[in-house]
Amino acid sequence: MNRKAQFVSAVLKKKGSQRAAGSAFAPVNIALVKYWGKRDQELNLPVTNSLSYTLSIGTHTSISLADRQDAIWLNDVPLSLEHPIARRLIAFCDLFRPDPATYFQIKTKNEVPTGAGLASSASGFAALTMAMNDLFGWDLDRRELSLLARLGSGSACRSLFDGFVEWHTGSREDGLDSFAERLDVEWPEFSVEPWILSSEQKAIDSRKAMQATIEHSSLYAAWPAKVAHDLSALKRALFDRDFDTLGAICENNALTMHATMIATAPPIIYWTEESLRAMRLVWQWRKNGLPIYFTMDAGPNLKLIFLKKDEATVRTLILSSKVYYPTSKCL
Amino acid sequence: MNRKAQFVSAVLKKKGSQRAAGSAFAPVNIALVKYWGKRDQELNLPVTNSLSYTLSIGTHTSISLADRQDAIWLNDVPLSLEHPIARRLIAFCDLFRPDPATYFQIKTKNEVPTGAGLASSASGFAALTMAMNDLFGWDLDRRELSLLARLGSGSACRSLFDGFVEWHTGSREDGLDSFAERLDVEWPEFSVEPWILSSEQKAIDSRKAMQATIEHSSLYAAWPAKVAHDLSALKRALFDRDFDTLGAICENNALTMHATMIATAPPIIYWTEESLRAMRLVWQWRKNGLPIYFTMDAGPNLKLIFLKKDEATVRTLILSSKVYYPTSKCL
Repeated sequence: MNRKAQFVSAVLKKKGSQRAAGSAFAPVNIALVKYWGKRDQELNLPVTNSLSYTLSIGTHTSISLADRQDAIWLNDVPLSLEHPIARRLIAFCDLFRPDPATYFQIKTKNEVPTGAGLASSASGFAALTMAMNDLFGWDLDRRELSLLARLGSGSACRSLFDGFVEWHTGSREDGLDSFAERLDVEWPEFSVEPWILSSEQKAIDSRKAMQATIEHSSLYAAWPAKVAHDLSALKRALFDRDFDTLGAICENNALTMHATMIATAPPIIYWTEESLRAMRLVWQWRKNGLPIYFTMDAGPNLKLIFLKKDEATVRTLILSSKVYYPTSKCL
Repeated sequence: MNRKAQFVSAVLKKKGSQRAAGSAFAPVNIALVKYWGKRDQELNLPVTNSLSYTLSIGTHTSISLADRQDAIWLNDVPLSLEHPIARRLIAFCDLFRPDPATYFQIKTKNEVPTGAGLASSASGFAALTMAMNDLFGWDLDRRELSLLARLGSGSACRSLFDGFVEWHTGSREDGLDSFAERLDVEWPEFSVEPWILSSEQKAIDSRKAMQATIEHSSLYAAWPAKVAHDLSALKRALFDRDFDTLGAICENNALTMHATMIATAPPIIYWTEESLRAMRLVWQWRKNGLPIYFTMDAGPNLKLIFLKKDEATVRTLILSSKVYYPTSKCL
């Protein structure tokens, strides 16, 4: 039995009572202190802890058993089983088939563009894990679901919780202590919204970018200490409801992650001209007195961090900036 | 006597025979492995060695004694003595006045835009040092001139030599072993030319950017080891005339320097949308088979690294790219 299968059987201690179908919704989460680098690629164990905020948009997934082969619909379109997304979902399903001749029909819908650095794989694998839990009647708690979702996509383990969420790197080799947990913070005024500048598929997917950075960026050596510092500073800001300190930490953490990529040989630059323009606009708005910050993931888009009271202002500014993807469902 | 004055008197051992006027030309140099960070701000002592290539364009400077106050012309325009450039030149001159009532008239002309990350301060302080040597008849050798020019602007110490030049950080506290030296490499085919995308003055000058990076960038900790690695790899490539290895090292070293700035809090981003577009064009041209690389300094412009045989192709590509500053005297 390989390490992944061992991990799954350690989490799935009791057999559930299977139903005809299962379904679930899981939200997107946006890391405020980033997950960037794995200490174990097979089990998706991160080098550092990370901390995220959960959005309301996400992925709806339903799953049922199928007769002769897997079948996958993404956003109402049947996917070729050779499609990279289908292969990744199938590989995840392989971990849970009661026998090799069990096939699944999976229908999944993203409320955000797929593969554009908008965390669709996080909500996608979290929703699939929850839908499986529903189908098989495992009756797992959130922490156990978080452990399983992690195998599909590391950051998916954070999409099992709302609010502010911390993913623990853990110390065990078997990965059973690397799950996410909700922080005990309520801050209804806090808001993060994607500013979609491009919904194009990424030139390099984030898993490859992450691995290339670890292996070929001379600056990655300084990243783990940076994260440790930012995590403790961000938690302090969070508990103090100190929005400006929190915003500055988030922005710098994201830029530092991008900096580790830019220093990679060959370089990984997700920024487009629009990204650069949008960052400068945010700085200008802030200079003009609006408390607004951004974070960015492995893609060209920004995620804006602001207080709910400023939402109308932020939307007006974005629309007037003309630097946005016009068919976006988000901002 | 302060440390700078001690340094100057240690270099100027013998009094020269003064003439009525002095003049000199010094070239711009482009760092291939960057100077980024000082171990001693007063004496301009760098954290690491650096390695540059000297261009043919540069600065022409003439100097003579003046009656009642200093007078400075930059590119044929008289400068207010309160202008930041004038203040910097005057502070440098202060180190060399035979008595406080000695004043200078300095006329300096840059063949490249001033303060746009095109190393005009390197050629400027090297030319001024050489012009002073001419005026005062110090009869210093290149190494001594390199030591003195360094006090005006660190990278100026490399503008005393042509070809490939290494600046040694040295180990002495008094800075007397931190000078530049020409490497024993002849490579007439090698070529570096600025690709000027903007001649605007920089938002933040490189001395301030350098200091902010050291103090506020979490990634700077990894920079000295990176430079040590790149220096030895670049020298090997240089002695082997291995152009592609050399180009890749230069490009990655420059991007890594920019990455340390991007990670600074608050961030220092010299890149413009044109910079990003120009980098991607270079990568596209290379993908199409042209051996071309770039380096960048503390500014938005690129410096292209290619072989002389490809010069006509490079010029055609740049002109057709429409991403250039049209009145540039360079490419």
